Amino acid sequence: MQFDTPPKDKAALEEGAVFTPRFDASGLITAVVTDAGDDALLMVAHMNAQALELTLETGIAHYWSRSRASLWKKGESSGNLQHVVELRTDCDQDVILLKVDVAGHDATCHTGRRSCFYRRITMENGTPRLADDGSERRFDSMKVYGGE
Amino acid sequence: MQFDTPPKDKAALEEGAVFTPRFDASGLITAVVTDAGDDALLMVAHMNAQALELTLETGIAHYWSRSRASLWKKGESSGNLQHVVELRTDCDQDVILLKVDVAGHDATCHTGRRSCFYRRITMENGTPRLADDGSERRFDSMKVYGGE
Repeated sequence: MQFDTPPKDKAALEEGAVFTPRFDASGLITAVVTDAGDDALLMVAHMNAQALELTLETGIAHYWSRSRASLWKKGESSGNLQHVVELRTDCDQDVILLKVDVAGHDATCHTGRRSCFYRRITMENGTPRLADDGSERRFDSMKVYGGE
Repeated sequence: MQFDTPPKDKAALEEGAVFTPRFDASGLITAVVTDAGDDALLMVAHMNAQALELTLETGIAHYWSRSRASLWKKGESSGNLQHVVELRTDCDQDVILLKVDVAGHDATCHTGRRSCFYRRITMENGTPRLADDGSERRFDSMKVYGGE
């Protein structure tokens, strides 16, 4: 699959029907992942062209792991595969939205929680602090990833 | 406001109560913006330390505009200010989630639509295409931004 070069014409980019994802200087595009059921934000990751292509072709979310510098089929170790219900892009086509159904434990964060966004930022005497929202751990991350 | 340096200890970063946002090499952090009412994804933008600080201190969302290379008080031209209802960060603290109430026309996209994610990516004979979801335009972007 070959992705076309983004048009210079702003109207074509923003209102057109041609999908021209805008990868950054590192060849990556931001991917925002929400639950197709209730739109809860689950994670934010990155895709290279190959990951985007595999996602489009298989309906299973693939990313590029920047820390491991490798293609990443999300859920391959934990069983928490992400089945794509809908894909969207934004006005200037530099973000992909994936609405997914999560298999396995229905958990997306590597800590075992449903979502990576389990901490609120709160202000205490003018200083921002983090407060855990008490999300349960749906799997034991030591057991799943301990050997890696 | 001074943000602490992210800890090298993964457990402290992921489970701790100290907010240590991880800005990238350009000094920016990704900001995902959802509607506090129904969790719909509205936009994805970036913040530098100053924008994050102003957001925390004022409760009104501020970003860093990469295209204009300037601080950006979202909605200053259109009236569609974003009132922050809740802020969160993710496991490795390199993304900020803003749950907001949008003032004015309750529109976030510069095209006048409620959300920037108004196009679905669909496959047609093996080729990805974009399909507009028919979102109404809540303001006339030519009138609001025409003079800029």
